[in-house]
Amino acid sequence: MIDRTDPEGTIAAAAQRCSNWGRWGEDDVLGTLNFLTDDKRVEAARLVRTGRVFSLAQPFDANGPQRGWRRRTNPVHTMLDTGLDAERGTQGFPHGFGGADDVVFMPLQCSTQWDGLGHIFDHGQAWNGRPAGDVVTSEGDRVTGIETVGARLTGRGVLLDFGDLPDGHAITADELDECAQDQGVEVGQGDIVCVRTGQLARAKRDGWGDYAGGPAPGLSFTTVDWLHAKEIAAIATDTWGFEVRPNEFDEAFQPLHQVVIPHLGLFVGEMWDFEDLAADCAADGRHDFWLTAAPLPVSGAVGSPLNPVAVK
Amino acid sequence: MIDRTDPEGTIAAAAQRCSNWGRWGEDDVLGTLNFLTDDKRVEAARLVRTGRVFSLAQPFDANGPQRGWRRRTNPVHTMLDTGLDAERGTQGFPHGFGGADDVVFMPLQCSTQWDGLGHIFDHGQAWNGRPAGDVVTSEGDRVTGIETVGARLTGRGVLLDFGDLPDGHAITADELDECAQDQGVEVGQGDIVCVRTGQLARAKRDGWGDYAGGPAPGLSFTTVDWLHAKEIAAIATDTWGFEVRPNEFDEAFQPLHQVVIPHLGLFVGEMWDFEDLAADCAADGRHDFWLTAAPLPVSGAVGSPLNPVAVK
Amino acid sequence: MIDRTDPEGTIAAAAQRCSNWGRWGEDDVLGTLNFLTDDKRVEAARLVRTGRVFSLAQPFDANGPQRGWRRRTNPVHTMLDTGLDAERGTQGFPHGFGGADDVVFMPLQCSTQWDGLGHIFDHGQAWNGRPAGDVVTSEGDRVTGIETVGARLTGRGVLLDFGDLPDGHAITADELDECAQDQGVEVGQGDIVCVRTGQLARAKRDGWGDYAGGPAPGLSFTTVDWLHAKEIAAIATDTWGFEVRPNEFDEAFQPLHQVVIPHLGLFVGEMWDFEDLAADCAADGRHDFWLTAAPLPVSGAVGSPLNPVAVK
Amino acid sequence: MIDRTDPEGTIAAAAQRCSNWGRWGEDDVLGTLNFLTDDKRVEAARLVRTGRVFSLAQPFDANGPQRGWRRRTNPVHTMLDTGLDAERGTQGFPHGFGGADDVVFMPLQCSTQWDGLGHIFDHGQAWNGRPAGDVVTSEGDRVTGIETVGARLTGRGVLLDFGDLPDGHAITADELDECAQDQGVEVGQGDIVCVRTGQLARAKRDGWGDYAGGPAPGLSFTTVDWLHAKEIAAIATDTWGFEVRPNEFDEAFQPLHQVVIPHLGLFVGEMWDFEDLAADCAADGRHDFWLTAAPLPVSGAVGSPLNPVAVK
Repeated sequence: MIDRTDPEGTIAAAAQRCSNWGRWGEDDVLGTLNFLTDDKRVEAARLVRTGRVFSLAQPFDANGPQRGWRRRTNPVHTMLDTGLDAERGTQGFPHGFGGADDVVFMPLQCSTQWDGLGHIFDHGQAWNGRPAGDVVTSEGDRVTGIETVGARLTGRGVLLDFGDLPDGHAITADELDECAQDQGVEVGQGDIVCVRTGQLARAKRDGWGDYAGGPAPGLSFTTVDWLHAKEIAAIATDTWGFEVRPNEFDEAFQPLHQVVIPHLGLFVGEMWDFEDLAADCAADGRHDFWLTAAPLPVSGAVGSPLNPVAVK
Repeated sequence: MIDRTDPEGTIAAAAQRCSNWGRWGEDDVLGTLNFLTDDKRVEAARLVRTGRVFSLAQPFDANGPQRGWRRRTNPVHTMLDTGLDAERGTQGFPHGFGGADDVVFMPLQCSTQWDGLGHIFDHGQAWNGRPAGDVVTSEGDRVTGIETVGARLTGRGVLLDFGDLPDGHAITADELDECAQDQGVEVGQGDIVCVRTGQLARAKRDGWGDYAGGPAPGLSFTTVDWLHAKEIAAIATDTWGFEVRPNEFDEAFQPLHQVVIPHLGLFVGEMWDFEDLAADCAADGRHDFWLTAAPLPVSGAVGSPLNPVAVK
Repeated sequence: MIDRTDPEGTIAAAAQRCSNWGRWGEDDVLGTLNFLTDDKRVEAARLVRTGRVFSLAQPFDANGPQRGWRRRTNPVHTMLDTGLDAERGTQGFPHGFGGADDVVFMPLQCSTQWDGLGHIFDHGQAWNGRPAGDVVTSEGDRVTGIETVGARLTGRGVLLDFGDLPDGHAITADELDECAQDQGVEVGQGDIVCVRTGQLARAKRDGWGDYAGGPAPGLSFTTVDWLHAKEIAAIATDTWGFEVRPNEFDEAFQPLHQVVIPHLGLFVGEMWDFEDLAADCAADGRHDFWLTAAPLPVSGAVGSPLNPVAVK
Repeated sequence: MIDRTDPEGTIAAAAQRCSNWGRWGEDDVLGTLNFLTDDKRVEAARLVRTGRVFSLAQPFDANGPQRGWRRRTNPVHTMLDTGLDAERGTQGFPHGFGGADDVVFMPLQCSTQWDGLGHIFDHGQAWNGRPAGDVVTSEGDRVTGIETVGARLTGRGVLLDFGDLPDGHAITADELDECAQDQGVEVGQGDIVCVRTGQLARAKRDGWGDYAGGPAPGLSFTTVDWLHAKEIAAIATDTWGFEVRPNEFDEAFQPLHQVVIPHLGLFVGEMWDFEDLAADCAADGRHDFWLTAAPLPVSGAVGSPLNPVAVK
């Protein structure tokens, strides 16, 4: 049970219980990615049986969910050259050559993404106990920038499909376990856990509404011990903010983030699209798969858009 | 032998010889990705033996190779919130929560990337014979936008490592075959062929110089028949422009692009970083691997930055 | 009276009646700015009597009216360096030097702006009868780019203050004349006419609502002859779109724009903020003033943000 | 004489001698703009005699001087809609309406600009003695943002035309006085002083070279007392950095900035283009004029691009 009136105390206690600070040395920049070893990958590759592939990314475009909160816009994609220019023959290339080029402006947290370890701080402290201001300055994250992840977010993915949870539903550790059991899958060390709440499916059907920051199903703050004990590498959901909203304290802002990112060193994925994958898993009854979830290595980024690829 | 004085005739002849227009129906948007089937992926997944992972992406930052040609800049990454702000306590979050956020502005062709099928036209025609202006307008590529690729660029990768070729060296089909043979690997249908010329290694050592658009080793125009006959899914190099520069005609601009993209429907990767992978391949003598090369699905994009991940 | 069922015919007739094509030669890029001569400026400078200055710009920031229509966002301003970094001493400058730098990403039509002559076309024709595609390509406006204006939008401003018109109110030519008469001011050749509808005041008080593209007071289509006959240099309003919305035809999109920009060559300002100026004009009864309304000369831009400065 | 070996001591002494902290109250955000009064503007308006206008802005485009130092790029201007799209009829507008729209991404310090009072700090202190981190955070300049200037940078401009100074020439106070005397003009309280070194003319002729940050003529550090005593409102030059480069200390970075911005509260303009204005002044012998130099009011910006307009 959560004491709704004591976010600071509850957060502090959880941080102390579940801290991974120092677990992989004082210079560590990988956090829970340390659980995802080469051996785990060799095992996970055996999950490829049909060769079917699934992109778990939402489209990156102006029709996304962002509404400007904290200057987060949807991506703005514009063209530097087009087929119309090529047809017109004004591009200055010889012998019938024509080209199209483009640019994008986007917040790195605007759509399907990873939160990097420099994304969230607790009382001015970043992952592994570093002062936040030593880690992320105006030059970006100089210690745990998303580029440090490289190719490591590649391994076994497990889908926990909750169907269609209502906004505000706080998923508990027991529910996570039951869901896994029902689907005949076990969550193990080094896994990338994919939690489908069904909210994105609703948003696709009914419009975004308050998808970006409003009420949503998501993980209960109480799952912090589960997330710690399972020694997973990462977790991703189909919602804006991974944890349940409204949050479970009277005054709160993403308290589970405040523990799992700086204290556990956990990689958190948000706004993933599990729809096609979930349908396939439902059809063949297999809920684990090979998953490559490589962030775009923008140097010093505290998060990253990506196109996660599941293969079964 | 190339007639250096007749780019248009030579290009037109090659386009006619090697055209894949209509091969997969008039509505096709996948081009040579049609060669990369689920069965091929099942085979390719068996290449995962050690679980070692390699990112084939360059860092995305202001220190990249771009110098402004056709408004292509290096990525500009800026922060919306930092650890310094979090420490200062000015962010307005409750109970010690702090965060960092960021944005990026970048040409989609600025660093490690895929050329999409809408990137290059021949005499106003795009892949599969469509008018360029019907495909790519100011709204982007409305037919073959990079999002249509989804998760498909996942399969077998083959590294052809040429060591350290001088700028201007035109790699021939025979050289491609010899390199494969020397490395004990065969290029097959549906493969993603990775050609390492050594130019990026030089640029890392000596500075970018004219890496973006200047002289470079690369594929000879004469490889067009090889690229067509091998039925590969995609090809990528460690250079700015995939084909040899200066080009092999007296007056020319990327003539091989002009055939392979609009006529073959071939996906071309550029500015990939094969350094770590190449060292590993040299060490264990295995030059094929599992490769996930998923573009960021910016809707309507004619190309895309990415973080390709090789697993051995 | 407008025939609500015949936008095309009505527009075509107005275009023919009021066309300025060829009036200043076939190479003209200035349109109605030709009316704003040096002599007019000398006269206008005499209007400076108190030295009081008024900025007619809205703030350029994320709290603006844009909601993403046609990829128009509000400006996104981010920092490259801050005072926090300077205090931290991480900037790498010697002897106590510290700095802050910043960048902005913004649509040129996002806030207080000028529509340039390349902003609107009628049936594929731009100002002075040029084909739209000869004028504005992906490289921008190569003929009438906003930089051609230079310093010319400097002269006499006249405020016509309508107080607080309801949305949908179509201001007629008679109303323009009456307003001028009531305020003891005459609209003359070369003037920059500033029409205050009161909508911005409402938006400031009540929130943006549908300010960007929704219902608004504004000029009636029927004022096209007045705008032509008065030989003004430019007109600006405190609304998103200058003309009344909903437009006065059953099926329509900004029909007055379609005539005044490509056919008259009129410069149109939108989203200007007349609040402080209007209060001063009401107080001293003088509704004309010296006005400098210099666009930011982004080369090839079809419009431009600006900070118009009125001096009385 | 400057002690080249003691930047810190020399800077500190100058700061103490010339400080304006507290001069206009502890809440002041205007600095030397306090010298530019309404009365001064009334006088200055009398300088308009011929009505000739001069834009003092460089073009804002990809051909500018920036080379990426501290992530400063040239502006990138892209189109959201073009005349080609309008001609093609794909824009979705009714009755022949067509439009073009555009966006820009640019550092606010990339071209013709004002340094705002939050742009430079001395030992962590901003204008009027405020802690730098209280003024400029990742949210921008929350105290002296460029929007606070509004319309105030409007008044008398004085051109001091030095012809063609070599790079590295440090302009002294005596030289400023002599130049004014030679040109028959006096620098007075509240003036906006425009110093033409000739470097931009050379760059236009010979290419940018190291214009952005390299050697340049400019004001000597020793002019700090002159700048203070004259009680000018602002100063602008045709160079990247206003003060002479290389700077006049053995180890230094823009030491004059470090005094005049945080301690005097002086507004500094850079990269202005005086070419046309200078030719006119040489022709008629009048070197003062009416000047409107209104920054684009990006909220919280520490500087701003602008199009300064001189009228004679």
